[in-house]
Amino acid sequence: MQGEFVDSLVVKNGTKIVFLVLDGLGGIPMPDGDLTELEAAVKPHMDALAKKSVCGLLDPVGCGITPGSGPAHFALFGYDPIKTNVGRGLLSATGVDFPMTPRDLFMRVNFATVNEEGVLTDRRAGRLATEENERLCRKLAERVHLSSPAAAGVEVFFRTEIEYRAVIALRGDDLREELEETDPQQTGVAPLAPRALVPEAARTSAILAELIDKVRETLADEGKANMILLRGYAKYHQFPDMGSRFGLKTLAIANYPMYRGLARLVGMEINPLTHTIAEEFAALEQAFTRYDFFFMHVKPTDSRGEDGNFEAKVKVIEEVDALLPRLSALKPDVLVITGDHSTPAALKSHSWHPVPVLLAAPTCRPDRVESFGERDCIQGGLGRMPMANLMALALAHAQRLTKFGA
Amino acid sequence: MQGEFVDSLVVKNGTKIVFLVLDGLGGIPMPDGDLTELEAAVKPHMDALAKKSVCGLLDPVGCGITPGSGPAHFALFGYDPIKTNVGRGLLSATGVDFPMTPRDLFMRVNFATVNEEGVLTDRRAGRLATEENERLCRKLAERVHLSSPAAAGVEVFFRTEIEYRAVIALRGDDLREELEETDPQQTGVAPLAPRALVPEAARTSAILAELIDKVRETLADEGKANMILLRGYAKYHQFPDMGSRFGLKTLAIANYPMYRGLARLVGMEINPLTHTIAEEFAALEQAFTRYDFFFMHVKPTDSRGEDGNFEAKVKVIEEVDALLPRLSALKPDVLVITGDHSTPAALKSHSWHPVPVLLAAPTCRPDRVESFGERDCIQGGLGRMPMANLMALALAHAQRLTKFGA
Repeated sequence: MQGEFVDSLVVKNGTKIVFLVLDGLGGIPMPDGDLTELEAAVKPHMDALAKKSVCGLLDPVGCGITPGSGPAHFALFGYDPIKTNVGRGLLSATGVDFPMTPRDLFMRVNFATVNEEGVLTDRRAGRLATEENERLCRKLAERVHLSSPAAAGVEVFFRTEIEYRAVIALRGDDLREELEETDPQQTGVAPLAPRALVPEAARTSAILAELIDKVRETLADEGKANMILLRGYAKYHQFPDMGSRFGLKTLAIANYPMYRGLARLVGMEINPLTHTIAEEFAALEQAFTRYDFFFMHVKPTDSRGEDGNFEAKVKVIEEVDALLPRLSALKPDVLVITGDHSTPAALKSHSWHPVPVLLAAPTCRPDRVESFGERDCIQGGLGRMPMANLMALALAHAQRLTKFGA
Repeated sequence: MQGEFVDSLVVKNGTKIVFLVLDGLGGIPMPDGDLTELEAAVKPHMDALAKKSVCGLLDPVGCGITPGSGPAHFALFGYDPIKTNVGRGLLSATGVDFPMTPRDLFMRVNFATVNEEGVLTDRRAGRLATEENERLCRKLAERVHLSSPAAAGVEVFFRTEIEYRAVIALRGDDLREELEETDPQQTGVAPLAPRALVPEAARTSAILAELIDKVRETLADEGKANMILLRGYAKYHQFPDMGSRFGLKTLAIANYPMYRGLARLVGMEINPLTHTIAEEFAALEQAFTRYDFFFMHVKPTDSRGEDGNFEAKVKVIEEVDALLPRLSALKPDVLVITGDHSTPAALKSHSWHPVPVLLAAPTCRPDRVESFGERDCIQGGLGRMPMANLMALALAHAQRLTKFGA
């Protein structure tokens, strides 16, 4: 990976770059099938673009490495995904617009269900509605007050993320993130303790133990959501701004909180919430003259992959394809269509398989790819390369990188 | 190359991984031919596997770099081949089961022939029989005694490796490995002196000069083996254990001492010696339930390549192919077939050409490769990548790597 070296070559101009990111785009065939989701989709517009663009396969983090959404998006945005890795708590906090300070410790929360013995029976509290989550966060904010000596001077904040997911922020001096996650990632066992993983985290561990006890007492009268699970502990962290790194005025069009948070962490402006993929395309049309770089995030490809629903994931790809002429009509100088990682329906989870990419620009050198699919992209002109190199390629095709050396 | 980062993602399970390594597998056509050895071989089972697996080309050390067997195998086992490179003497010592101590300096020995003027006429002493080598080592152990002041307190050990190859170990304080090899790599010239390459190696250089003098006197009455050539100086060195790095219980099935030694250096258990390729497959069958990872080493592909015997190398590949159904019947979760490097018969030596690889697992994404050969692998889904990344891919397909980041 080339790292931040390209930053020194950046020049500004009026060209426009669009990254259309279908979350979890890459796939593999189902056990009885031969085609991936992308290969199976009827997508005439993407195929037509593939013919005149350059294609390839991207490794988000490395060979064999299954990326979480955080590192995968950092790689897409041109950042080293290993050096920039952060706990999901920070991403979630950014996604809910929490006013962060350097003294904050963030963590991601699942509302969950435990039985009378304290054994987990549902890690997602029956996929709680967002409104219920908001009511519970208000209730916790009113009733949970830390009172132990360890917690002296520490404030606690509860914020709804979406459905069963929330964010807790602790604000205080010398809080640490080196703690065991309490989500055991399975039901039928009790939640884990927030054990300190280094001696310096002992006080934070004690504060969290008190917090969990008081939350459980407060939620005891709730039917489903009578427990919380904590993971993704992360202290506040500042990242280099994408605008200053690459000389771009950037806009993120994304509806799921974590992706809005990720974009905000690298300094993107965030489009107001929309509700459908078509509305995301409309948002792009409206904002097109005002920015240089657009990150458009389509979430349902990943969700349907995680559901194991091959056909539904195919349908999402086809829905995006049908909207593509609206994007092409804007004539962006560089259009990239790719995913952040693979989420094969056959595996019902993120996977390590490299991600198909298509880069369309007038300066593309033709390759022999005739259709946008994984086994075609293997033959493409980009070959197989680290995802973090993609941003430099997009900048180059947008005439935004100057020559290196005399 | 990704390095040791993947180690932090390792999880354990019951899956089984087999690396079937045909030494020197990669080839090029003979001057009057069009096919490589692998392309020319009739190998229906490998071709059938290639259709449902993912293929590619591996660079053991880097583009244009011809690897020795040491670095090539370290790369196969997931180690940085440059950082872990060690003198061949250490590998040979491990291969002959020498009881090593941290005070030891090892070197590889060729028994050789010089004429009356001291000029080399045969670098391998007529490819000496192993029994003769053993007799010579006993003779040297009895008669060679270092007596110079420089050698005070230094012990010397002679060990037979195979045919014309032996190992010498010096044991003492402050021995150094920065010395010129005495093998000039050609006949018609005199052996070189074991010159010190750094000032700190001057004493070791003097000890070796005395040793060579006394060995030559002792061998003066031998017909062919009247001289030794030294190379691969290496001090004792400890490597991270493959079992602890990757959470694998590992077995090496290899018959040539150096490969057994290499496997031992990374902590593999070593199967008892077998004598034919068929016996190696039988050994795998017998051990299959007791280990997670199997390194099966087939030597004759390399030997026939070094002989320049294209047809004989093809025959070895065909012999392995005929045995492959026995391996497939064991249903390993991940089966990798590859080489450690290329040894084209046309060059009669190791070469820098990347090495064909086939990785078969239920989670493979299909590519368009229909046959296992170099020009097919170029089109494969693995693309061209560093060999040291292969282990991470195998672990991923064996479900032994967890997700990176949230």
